[in-house]
Amino acid sequence: MSAPLSASKLTITKTTNPKPKLPNDQLVFGATFTDHMLTIEWEDGIGWKTPEIKPYQNFSMDPATCVFHYAFELFEGLKAYKDKNGNVRMFRPDKNVERMNKSAERIALPTFDGEELIKLIGELLKLDHSFIPEGRGYSLYIRPTLIGTDVGLGVHFPKKALLYVITSPVGPYYSTGFKPVRLLATDFATRAWPGGVGNRKLGANYAPCIVPQIEAAKKGYQQNLWLFGEEKFITEVGTMNVFFVFKDAASGKKEIVTAPLDGTILEGVTRDSILDLCRERLDPAEWTVNERYFTIFEVEDKASKGELVEAFGSGTAAVVSPICEIGWRDNDIKVPVNEKTQIGDLTQQIATWIAELQYGEKDHEWSRVVV
Amino acid sequence: MSAPLSASKLTITKTTNPKPKLPNDQLVFGATFTDHMLTIEWEDGIGWKTPEIKPYQNFSMDPATCVFHYAFELFEGLKAYKDKNGNVRMFRPDKNVERMNKSAERIALPTFDGEELIKLIGELLKLDHSFIPEGRGYSLYIRPTLIGTDVGLGVHFPKKALLYVITSPVGPYYSTGFKPVRLLATDFATRAWPGGVGNRKLGANYAPCIVPQIEAAKKGYQQNLWLFGEEKFITEVGTMNVFFVFKDAASGKKEIVTAPLDGTILEGVTRDSILDLCRERLDPAEWTVNERYFTIFEVEDKASKGELVEAFGSGTAAVVSPICEIGWRDNDIKVPVNEKTQIGDLTQQIATWIAELQYGEKDHEWSRVVV
Repeated sequence: MSAPLSASKLTITKTTNPKPKLPNDQLVFGATFTDHMLTIEWEDGIGWKTPEIKPYQNFSMDPATCVFHYAFELFEGLKAYKDKNGNVRMFRPDKNVERMNKSAERIALPTFDGEELIKLIGELLKLDHSFIPEGRGYSLYIRPTLIGTDVGLGVHFPKKALLYVITSPVGPYYSTGFKPVRLLATDFATRAWPGGVGNRKLGANYAPCIVPQIEAAKKGYQQNLWLFGEEKFITEVGTMNVFFVFKDAASGKKEIVTAPLDGTILEGVTRDSILDLCRERLDPAEWTVNERYFTIFEVEDKASKGELVEAFGSGTAAVVSPICEIGWRDNDIKVPVNEKTQIGDLTQQIATWIAELQYGEKDHEWSRVVV
Repeated sequence: MSAPLSASKLTITKTTNPKPKLPNDQLVFGATFTDHMLTIEWEDGIGWKTPEIKPYQNFSMDPATCVFHYAFELFEGLKAYKDKNGNVRMFRPDKNVERMNKSAERIALPTFDGEELIKLIGELLKLDHSFIPEGRGYSLYIRPTLIGTDVGLGVHFPKKALLYVITSPVGPYYSTGFKPVRLLATDFATRAWPGGVGNRKLGANYAPCIVPQIEAAKKGYQQNLWLFGEEKFITEVGTMNVFFVFKDAASGKKEIVTAPLDGTILEGVTRDSILDLCRERLDPAEWTVNERYFTIFEVEDKASKGELVEAFGSGTAAVVSPICEIGWRDNDIKVPVNEKTQIGDLTQQIATWIAELQYGEKDHEWSRVVV
């Protein structure tokens, strides 16, 4: 029987060469890392080996390792926040480890008990506690990663794997207030397809999106609004889920809408949290909250009738990312933002709701004190 | 201006610890490697650095290197053959470097002058000459690989990359005669789609195919026959292109057919060679050679009328791989093979044609003497 992942077996080797900490205003997303990392090797027939926390260090890898050739790789992104009492909190880590296991299953990498991984990440946070920056908008970005480490060029399921976690102190995505983005509605490239892997957080979904992003940038847009099929369904934006807010001119009733989880949409933790909070907190007499198919034509039509209220991307890095314009064929669809705050009112409200939970300003089961 | 890739800058460091050579009957595809490897670093703004041939050795890589997270990785596969005069030959290497550049462009990795890379591979072959096994079916498998080596978790085009080449002595794919394969016609997973990257040799196309392959294996089939769309077009088999041979019962006229290069099909060098050879060598009074769409329904229909003659996969590893059966819904479509040879007659003919060129038994512009 293969050994399960067990946090109780953890060994810790502390660094003898601590890194200096950067001041908050010099933090760049994913550019600097803390003193330590967590690694756990897996081998077919043996199972999960001893979890190790050790000084952040390079891997030594054979050039024929399968991660370099066949993209046996997946990752997660979540954050640790310091609350006003100095506690360290994680936001819905159970959702991340659940998704990580789904990603692993999809490319024949080993799965594990997610709660054990959360415990181990807690130990890493304990050790690198002093790297977690303080203040609203600041956090420690946590990057669990799972790669195939078999050596050899045969294409088959990896018989060896490495799960590792590195962490990077990060500042607010929008350090000088919100900056709404211009999107290029994109049907010249397709991010995901039914029967593919677009709903899993695999490395394979990312590299192919860079060239379309460069194409968008050449035309003056920051990100792609990914369309799907002849219907031109709206699916995601850049590497985020996407929400639109409509208001029916006749009834005055408002709708917040995002694409349904049909296998082509990443199962975003922020997406899920936004849907739950909106269903719980928005007045149902005034609002409907929908996961449904909608198209760029619907958005264009609603915009022309003054029924497009706001739109935003959602993800772990930025929480929400307001949208101000969408290039579509020869037209730029204007998306309203509050002139002063440069963000839609509901988008702002949602950002506040989520930050209050992440920083433990309001008690909620989604926020776990881990240190 | 960025420096181009230049073979003239090559530096060579020879191993002081030569590996033992395995006897031919112990060679396993991609499992052992020769004494040396070729590496060339690239950096944005600087260009291609000094090509180095050095002892085969591990890479030292930061855990935040982008190849581990976002699948910035692509590869090629080609072979070097020893001919009866002891010369070392490569088969159409220009096609491989051309395709490698197309792959690089698709995921924002740097391109290069392909002929320079061929020269450098020639130097590597010169040095590791004694590892190339002799005899029909034996060869040295060459694996050029290009990976993004930027350190950091931001998702953008890699500002650093590493091109490397490793080589592995290999034996015949079918060491004890041809073994035709049983395929599962697969519409429960989709390998590639329009606007995606299925026509490029990216790592991203491989990991997602393992779970469907395991599903096929559970049902007793060796490989997936990848279908596409509601029409159930036949696209590829496993990691190979696929050919079918039909014979019209009324006219007696035969057709060899493979899927067209519409962006979802890997542009196989063996595929291209087969099409060219068939167009050149098959009697047009008897044969048509077609790149066209065809569906599993057409195959099923032709099989029921006795018009399905043979079918095979094509690729660098096996050259041709005969097919004997296709599972489709609750039916097994039988594909004829010659009872004695376990391969179709045209499939066998094509295998011979290509081997004669690869091993330099017949002179042809496709076969280059490199050492």
